[in-house]
Amino acid sequence: MNEFSDAARDGLSPAGLEAVLREVGAARYHNRHPFHHQMMSGALTKAQMQAWALNRYCYQSVIPRKDAMIIARSENPEFRAEWRKRVEDHDGSDGWSGGIARWLKLATGLGLDADLVKSEKLALPATRFAVGAYLSFCTNRTLLEAVASSLTELFSPVIIGERVPAMLAKYDYVTKDILAYFDKRPAQASRDSDFALAYVMKHAGTPEKQQAVIDALVFKCDVLWAMLDALAHAYGEKGNIPPGAFDPEAA
Amino acid sequence: MNEFSDAARDGLSPAGLEAVLREVGAARYHNRHPFHHQMMSGALTKAQMQAWALNRYCYQSVIPRKDAMIIARSENPEFRAEWRKRVEDHDGSDGWSGGIARWLKLATGLGLDADLVKSEKLALPATRFAVGAYLSFCTNRTLLEAVASSLTELFSPVIIGERVPAMLAKYDYVTKDILAYFDKRPAQASRDSDFALAYVMKHAGTPEKQQAVIDALVFKCDVLWAMLDALAHAYGEKGNIPPGAFDPEAA
Repeated sequence: MNEFSDAARDGLSPAGLEAVLREVGAARYHNRHPFHHQMMSGALTKAQMQAWALNRYCYQSVIPRKDAMIIARSENPEFRAEWRKRVEDHDGSDGWSGGIARWLKLATGLGLDADLVKSEKLALPATRFAVGAYLSFCTNRTLLEAVASSLTELFSPVIIGERVPAMLAKYDYVTKDILAYFDKRPAQASRDSDFALAYVMKHAGTPEKQQAVIDALVFKCDVLWAMLDALAHAYGEKGNIPPGAFDPEAA
Repeated sequence: MNEFSDAARDGLSPAGLEAVLREVGAARYHNRHPFHHQMMSGALTKAQMQAWALNRYCYQSVIPRKDAMIIARSENPEFRAEWRKRVEDHDGSDGWSGGIARWLKLATGLGLDADLVKSEKLALPATRFAVGAYLSFCTNRTLLEAVASSLTELFSPVIIGERVPAMLAKYDYVTKDILAYFDKRPAQASRDSDFALAYVMKHAGTPEKQQAVIDALVFKCDVLWAMLDALAHAYGEKGNIPPGAFDPEAA
């Protein structure tokens, strides 16, 4: 029951489906979220930036697991080989030379302890629940829906293009070195989202499947949005840190 | 990594374990949450009260499913027969004469449309993620942990005892009739939590299992807390309703 709930009712052409998916991103992707706008304007405190990095680590660390789940569910060797690149991107050759390690470098570059970040123990429960929902979705929904939920990558070059220059310009403690994670992502995300989009266009052959694809992307946008909502609530002006979560004053 | 993370390190007596579990409730149960305090003080708007009832419906509606999952995981007929009472309490004889129906009556009594509430489509994504985490927990963790996660019922007579008189006294549109849900719950919850507590005392025979039980209750308190955090953020003074969620202005 949202503006996209009926989008595929009459069936869509491949181009029409792509157009709806891009509308979902334009309306729902988390570059629309107030917390992102605050980050871009230089308004975040260092404590808020730390909380963002620490919580987002939980998301980063589950990505190769959800991708392995997608691989596990495919009977097509070519699909599996292509999708495996994602796991390699995040884990690297030894588990700690890919995207997760680069995100950890960002977190430690912001002054956080590596073991504390890796433990994920001080993340917001709401972050854990959102990330868990994403893993469950890729486990329990159809393979088509799991693939479609990755399509937020269509929009990630945009948010990275907004985020990186703003972080460098507005926060003197942010250096190009600690933002190495973002150097690699746009090219990887473009390659991955091209493949996923082509898969979706090919396999969403009925209005029902098209709607499922659209709903999957809405769901994924909800996951990313809810993560920023939780940060904004816990570490915003009023401060509503739930019991047991990262407390910058105590750190 | 919270104040209870090490509580069972040296092993606890049954009475010692119960004492720690009650400390978890005293520190972490959602009667400590600012949103609950606002409700008690009469400070909630009717729109906030509606949002609370609409979102909490998602939690109510998953309860018999998580209880059926617990039944499905037990090899003991006596345990199953006892735990089945919970499913009966919530579903009633025909699915709509138990706790879920009474919660729906509360929601409609607050002016919401029954089909809209039952659809769960306008609930906050964060509510769905928290409720989903609870169902996943009861599916994927040990039976002992799943049982232990129900122990928030030890504290529910307290919150109901705070909530009901306050709702009747402070909000003229709240009547005893629409609060029928809460009439039955204290006796049911006492019966259920007595059984679950005895089970936990009997089966948590090692420090590791005792710690798992404590962690399960902390997790469950996090679920309830996160649901109120999400309400407070979306429907608080500033208003940060995420895209697609219940909007009182539009209703």
